Amino acid sequence: MRPAILTLTTDFGTEGLYVASVKGVVLGLAPDTQLVDVTHQVSPQNIREGAFLLAGLIDVFPKGTVHLAVVDPGVGTDRRLIAAAVADHWFVLPDNGLLTAVTRDRPPSGIWELVNPAYRRSPVSATFHGRDILAPAAAHLLQGGDPAELGPACTELVMLGAFEATAHADGFVGEVICRDAFGNLITNIEAKRLHDAPAQDWTLEVAGTRIAGLGRTYADKAAGTLVALPGSTGWIEISVVNGDAGQALNVGPGTPVRLTKSSRERNAPA
Amino acid sequence: MRPAILTLTTDFGTEGLYVASVKGVVLGLAPDTQLVDVTHQVSPQNIREGAFLLAGLIDVFPKGTVHLAVVDPGVGTDRRLIAAAVADHWFVLPDNGLLTAVTRDRPPSGIWELVNPAYRRSPVSATFHGRDILAPAAAHLLQGGDPAELGPACTELVMLGAFEATAHADGFVGEVICRDAFGNLITNIEAKRLHDAPAQDWTLEVAGTRIAGLGRTYADKAAGTLVALPGSTGWIEISVVNGDAGQALNVGPGTPVRLTKSSRERNAPA
Amino acid sequence: MRPAILTLTTDFGTEGLYVASVKGVVLGLAPDTQLVDVTHQVSPQNIREGAFLLAGLIDVFPKGTVHLAVVDPGVGTDRRLIAAAVADHWFVLPDNGLLTAVTRDRPPSGIWELVNPAYRRSPVSATFHGRDILAPAAAHLLQGGDPAELGPACTELVMLGAFEATAHADGFVGEVICRDAFGNLITNIEAKRLHDAPAQDWTLEVAGTRIAGLGRTYADKAAGTLVALPGSTGWIEISVVNGDAGQALNVGPGTPVRLTKSSRERNAPA
Repeated sequence: MRPAILTLTTDFGTEGLYVASVKGVVLGLAPDTQLVDVTHQVSPQNIREGAFLLAGLIDVFPKGTVHLAVVDPGVGTDRRLIAAAVADHWFVLPDNGLLTAVTRDRPPSGIWELVNPAYRRSPVSATFHGRDILAPAAAHLLQGGDPAELGPACTELVMLGAFEATAHADGFVGEVICRDAFGNLITNIEAKRLHDAPAQDWTLEVAGTRIAGLGRTYADKAAGTLVALPGSTGWIEISVVNGDAGQALNVGPGTPVRLTKSSRERNAPA
Repeated sequence: MRPAILTLTTDFGTEGLYVASVKGVVLGLAPDTQLVDVTHQVSPQNIREGAFLLAGLIDVFPKGTVHLAVVDPGVGTDRRLIAAAVADHWFVLPDNGLLTAVTRDRPPSGIWELVNPAYRRSPVSATFHGRDILAPAAAHLLQGGDPAELGPACTELVMLGAFEATAHADGFVGEVICRDAFGNLITNIEAKRLHDAPAQDWTLEVAGTRIAGLGRTYADKAAGTLVALPGSTGWIEISVVNGDAGQALNVGPGTPVRLTKSSRERNAPA
Repeated sequence: MRPAILTLTTDFGTEGLYVASVKGVVLGLAPDTQLVDVTHQVSPQNIREGAFLLAGLIDVFPKGTVHLAVVDPGVGTDRRLIAAAVADHWFVLPDNGLLTAVTRDRPPSGIWELVNPAYRRSPVSATFHGRDILAPAAAHLLQGGDPAELGPACTELVMLGAFEATAHADGFVGEVICRDAFGNLITNIEAKRLHDAPAQDWTLEVAGTRIAGLGRTYADKAAGTLVALPGSTGWIEISVVNGDAGQALNVGPGTPVRLTKSSRERNAPA
């Protein structure tokens, strides 16, 4: 039998005890787990960035994987903690919008509220529900346990507003969602929404700069050139060939981005 | 049979070969090990911070876990390397004070000096005993080996002075031990020592700022408010609700902290 | 049977989805894999640094380990992706010089080009061959698969020029290759090349500073002293005892280093 996989996506950082505490609790209950860190460097309490990352996991991990996520500015308030089944994957997380992108085109097949004290550490701390509530719930699912034992089923999820770029007659208005280690800027404009015009007809504007046409790969142009292209997880990215676009444009998450379809008229000489 | 767990706590950083070298040696000898990184970002050669982190592991990992720790400014001197059994956990580390907090209220049930050349890589380098001495010793314990084979038993451990805050008639004088990824400042004042006065009667002073009363969770007060509260690992923490206390106070490890019990007289109007 | 080990060495950073995507694909195909991160903080697109790190893995990991490496400024161009067998280890990576140091004194026993579509994700993205081509190839080898199924055998590897320090009549001219978490500066001068003169006869020059003699360990001299010594992976390092040499000298990768043998004449008083 293949070992169950647990991925972890948090804003805990890697300096302290938080990540290891969650893993220790999981391994005490589900010792054969294959642990995979997605990242612990989500910007502190940035639910939007966490939601974006979770959306990329279903395509690359096998069915049955349990994804534990903690970006939880509401710890200690009455926000719910849940387990959700989506596309044969499990998600264990606060119900605060983190599933917004995962469930865009995949409705959950089940949602349960994590209230059963038998699947919580005792006592539950006021500030670390990842360790005390989410970790034992994840371990239960990793062991093949019935989610209905964790608590009552629910039907509604909290959703973030305006997660994706807005469509207009001549294109899209969105924003930069994150900046990767290479300085590539990943936007919330999904590449598959651009099918009604050829690549060379799109123009991207960001921070007062215009990039004409969409490229196919970083190596299309000379080093130092600014390019826009469909990224490996399906979103439009802004890059500098062999360089750092975030630095070159002095731009980061939250910066507005506009993608416009050229019309023949507009391109005609004056 | 559940796989043996090895945790790693070091100041090696994550840029180079140090961490992978220790893991490679362990896996060559104990291939079924479940590896868990606690952190490799202990401040370089800060034994006190390492000791603080190790103290948090026993409560969250299962019995039988082996904890390897390297914060070792004395590598190359005659400081001892040891294995110690504490509360059915194993620790493999330099004897330089790293066990100070672990053994505060749990005496070791055994200590052995790692001198048997059969459990060392050959030759032993002058600067990387984590790879050449600690890793093979940890692998031996992970495989269920007898600790007495590693070397002779010893009875004394090196201890750091003044690890915990000092008690005074009207409260405690301690310091900030570490700053987490959220900017929370964790002090060396243990929450359970404050049982003789209610939460609202304590006042914390740090960097010229006074915080009246102890909170229960980050979400007790409005965003931006400075709060002091018992943290998830049992120590008093200083936080800014949805903010960064370290930044707000411009404070880090080593900063003095005073926690004082208010008396009715002192609180009376002048 | 011992689980197969996969190490990962990349410039992906740890903030985003890249590392987890590679791991997810591998685990979907080879679920029992023992995953070990070497580092994901190779300086972006710095093949030389990646080559240096890979050279340190063979001595510490057991035979049969698969090493996946991605430092790939040429993604999207026609550079080859290969699997190579070296000293009973497997390497899966772009053929862009990353094997320069690994193969210095160990010729590969086989090289295969990764072109078989049966061992690629479909479709292959233009910008993320680590996930789409290298991960499935690594999984095939981790499962004990025949490398010849991955594609045709090849014989030549791309090599970086001037990887090691140059020997001269009176010593070596090289450079700093990387700076570790302690600020130690690791050079491309291999310690074993210095056998023709005793340690005290060598003088190292870097950034206008001279260090007389080679030490044995960081603890040889008083705190704050600048020392040069053979490092734990076999290269000459520059260190400050209990300090940060990179900071003290304001020096990083690429800085020239000269190591000179003193002659009795040159040391004589004028």
